[in-house]
Amino acid sequence: VRILVVGATGTIGAAVVRSLETRHEVLAAGRSSGLRVDMSDRDSIASLYAHVGQVDAVVCTAGHAAFRPLLELADEDLRRSLDGKLMGQVNLVRLGADVLSDGGSFTLSSGLLSRQPLPGSTALSMVNAAIEGFVRAAALDLPRGLRVNAVSPSWVRETLAAMGRDPDPGVPAAAVAGSYVKCVEGDMTGQVLDVFTGAGDAD
Amino acid sequence: VRILVVGATGTIGAAVVRSLETRHEVLAAGRSSGLRVDMSDRDSIASLYAHVGQVDAVVCTAGHAAFRPLLELADEDLRRSLDGKLMGQVNLVRLGADVLSDGGSFTLSSGLLSRQPLPGSTALSMVNAAIEGFVRAAALDLPRGLRVNAVSPSWVRETLAAMGRDPDPGVPAAAVAGSYVKCVEGDMTGQVLDVFTGAGDAD
Repeated sequence: VRILVVGATGTIGAAVVRSLETRHEVLAAGRSSGLRVDMSDRDSIASLYAHVGQVDAVVCTAGHAAFRPLLELADEDLRRSLDGKLMGQVNLVRLGADVLSDGGSFTLSSGLLSRQPLPGSTALSMVNAAIEGFVRAAALDLPRGLRVNAVSPSWVRETLAAMGRDPDPGVPAAAVAGSYVKCVEGDMTGQVLDVFTGAGDAD
Repeated sequence: VRILVVGATGTIGAAVVRSLETRHEVLAAGRSSGLRVDMSDRDSIASLYAHVGQVDAVVCTAGHAAFRPLLELADEDLRRSLDGKLMGQVNLVRLGADVLSDGGSFTLSSGLLSRQPLPGSTALSMVNAAIEGFVRAAALDLPRGLRVNAVSPSWVRETLAAMGRDPDPGVPAAAVAGSYVKCVEGDMTGQVLDVFTGAGDAD
């Protein structure tokens, strides 16, 4: 099948592309490489869809939200978090609903901070939770057998290593990618797949 | 204690005021009666706080979000839903953190559609879920023992009756109000109180 992956050069996105491209046609999109898209700009998402034409699945691993203590969050931090990670993914579904083939799927990204917050995670926890609420409800309204799910990853091993932190509590990116593949190739809709643990869990 | 109730004339808000005013000083605020506030306007919220001065608790039962099928939602529906019910309550906490007395509390409103969606509830489910994620995380960042919780009510009996529907599956407004009182008078923080069932549950 023909799959559009937005955020294809991030740690998780690249792992998703590697997992999918062995048996599917993958169209890689991102902010600064592959097919270009600015997820905070509705028109940019519409242009991307006009450019790629019909696809069978859309996977999104892109989207930034602020990580900063509640009382240090500027209005602009909150606005960018909502416009980027939340509304970017919401618009990917709204605008893509006409573009996907019957039975096609959207797989979005939230993150475990939605339900396991840390100090400083308010904007990210709010946005991730919103994505999970969106997915559960949007699944009920999509036509033509279209599906929508989200993967909610914990810290990723490779990201922790790149930050100079102990990678051992992290989930390998390849394991996280396995959950995205499940959403694309499976039948589920309206689901949030938590990826807490090691590689075995996501197989 | 001195409690600011925003949304005091709504079905739930009025019940909250009735429950609280027997033993507390209640300041009633709303869009069109009592102390006036436009929850979608940050400056309006700041003016309200400047006017009331120090309070010990803030309860918010105000906030509108669109109820419309996903693919019929206009950009403006989503923007208003985020600005009103979500950012209005977020700003009530951000701006109120300097105004509340030590150990004071915020009690916000989400709604069970966050986790029990219906067709057409996408915007509301997204916003309610975001409020729940916000509350869980914001509790970790608030200073001076300030607390923040949310009440997540199911359909309210009086609201169903006013809509000409069978009120029996609904929760009486007085029972919902009991959960807000628990949040104000208790010690919990970062919690989402679900109000599913009848009066007995919320006592």
